[in-house]
Amino acid sequence: MRYDIAIVGSGPAGLSAAINAKIRNKNIIVFGSKDLSSKVLKAPKVNNYLGLPGIDGKQLKDNFKKHIDSMGIEITEKKINNIYAMGEYFSIMANEEIFEATTVILATGVEFTKPIKGEEEFLGKGVGYCATCDAPLYRDKKVAIVGYNHEAEEEANYVNELAETVYYIPMYKDEISIDKEIEVIKDRPIEIQGENLVDKLVLKELSIDVDGVFFIKDSISPNHLMPGLEMEDGHIKVDRSMKTNIPGCFAAGDISGKPYQYIKSSGEGLVAGLSAVSYLDKK
Amino acid sequence: MRYDIAIVGSGPAGLSAAINAKIRNKNIIVFGSKDLSSKVLKAPKVNNYLGLPGIDGKQLKDNFKKHIDSMGIEITEKKINNIYAMGEYFSIMANEEIFEATTVILATGVEFTKPIKGEEEFLGKGVGYCATCDAPLYRDKKVAIVGYNHEAEEEANYVNELAETVYYIPMYKDEISIDKEIEVIKDRPIEIQGENLVDKLVLKELSIDVDGVFFIKDSISPNHLMPGLEMEDGHIKVDRSMKTNIPGCFAAGDISGKPYQYIKSSGEGLVAGLSAVSYLDKK
Repeated sequence: MRYDIAIVGSGPAGLSAAINAKIRNKNIIVFGSKDLSSKVLKAPKVNNYLGLPGIDGKQLKDNFKKHIDSMGIEITEKKINNIYAMGEYFSIMANEEIFEATTVILATGVEFTKPIKGEEEFLGKGVGYCATCDAPLYRDKKVAIVGYNHEAEEEANYVNELAETVYYIPMYKDEISIDKEIEVIKDRPIEIQGENLVDKLVLKELSIDVDGVFFIKDSISPNHLMPGLEMEDGHIKVDRSMKTNIPGCFAAGDISGKPYQYIKSSGEGLVAGLSAVSYLDKK
Repeated sequence: MRYDIAIVGSGPAGLSAAINAKIRNKNIIVFGSKDLSSKVLKAPKVNNYLGLPGIDGKQLKDNFKKHIDSMGIEITEKKINNIYAMGEYFSIMANEEIFEATTVILATGVEFTKPIKGEEEFLGKGVGYCATCDAPLYRDKKVAIVGYNHEAEEEANYVNELAETVYYIPMYKDEISIDKEIEVIKDRPIEIQGENLVDKLVLKELSIDVDGVFFIKDSISPNHLMPGLEMEDGHIKVDRSMKTNIPGCFAAGDISGKPYQYIKSSGEGLVAGLSAVSYLDKK
């Protein structure tokens, strides 16, 4: 089954794209979180979303939820690791699953963390963003998993079934629930070293010899997510119709540039949604 | 007194610019209507303003009103006829009054009507958009006033105090309340004719000899409103930060391009507002 529009991200940009695509009777899938947007949810006060004076992030999120519920839009809770432009369509990789869509709207926000030294250099040479995908390469080897969220714990558990040694480095403060053979290291990663392949992960307090390092982040930086995507000042380059340089791929919200503001994202989501509809209708 | 930001238009783009400029402690003036936006007000249903599911235009307008009221933003009910870029500031002409502002945000929508044949050619040569401004030129002469709204009736009454003959051509269907010496003609203007100056207004059913024709419209097309403004496909040309080609002048909403949708306007209004703030802070 091929969707008309795959929307990656469930913040205001993704949701606004979704309601407009749905109104225009397109067959859509929205990847994100049931909480919609942790950034919105945690906002103590939002006073500049025109039409909703004096609300907090929780209320704004509840209003968004009510809106998508009223239109029968559901959120698919899958983390997208890679998207490949195949010409006529896009292949969207969510760990072991593959989805297909004719157009893609990227609305993943800017919550992605800066790469550490060596991370980009060793990408594909021992550094990866999807442990579930690449775990078989590390059978009987030493692997470090740098986890930015609880989902990373599951990935660590899975890697632990194959690898000889698994180190888990949590980048969050909550309680960790993980297989007890996994060694948890509470330290900050600084650099990845190696010759052609990864040899070592240098942390602030110590260094560990490893064959692979996985970074399990909330979002992957857009040019890693979709190879070939043109960036500008750390954001996806778009025109006024929210087109990217890749035909059929649109972007909206924080990921497409500042200011990082909810109603700017909602406005751009609408434009991206209608641009995708118009792209489909011309095909 | 010079304002930091003059916002022309009280639809979603203008209001969103206003609340963001106000939050940033700028000294603003918003020109528009107490009804905010007749387009919003008349919308039978709005289902794609994310966060406000299943509302009608009246409710949306009421929400906008509540929002600006909560921030102490008032609407100045003046029609702006011309804006001139003076270098360090802008001169904003509202009939006989002149306002000054360091920056201007144009958010007047796209309700302006197409010019008729000869209208642009004879502009300043017998054709005008502000009867109150230019009435003295027509002392003891014949003037036609093409009125798109009730405010035009007042202008016709004023011109009638000076001119020899005044014809009033209403472009709306409501009742007309006008001085009884003024001849009301219910017909559609087609063309303006003349040698160097206006001689004649051709209507669908008849022609009248006149020395001047005033078009009193809801909005003036942006390049007449502000000379030198760069247009593109009938809209004000802007970049992603809503800058126009004139330094200190920004535009947002329908006037800056399609799609004509409320939340796109609100998003752009925010961006224009913050861009104006940033322009001021750099001065």
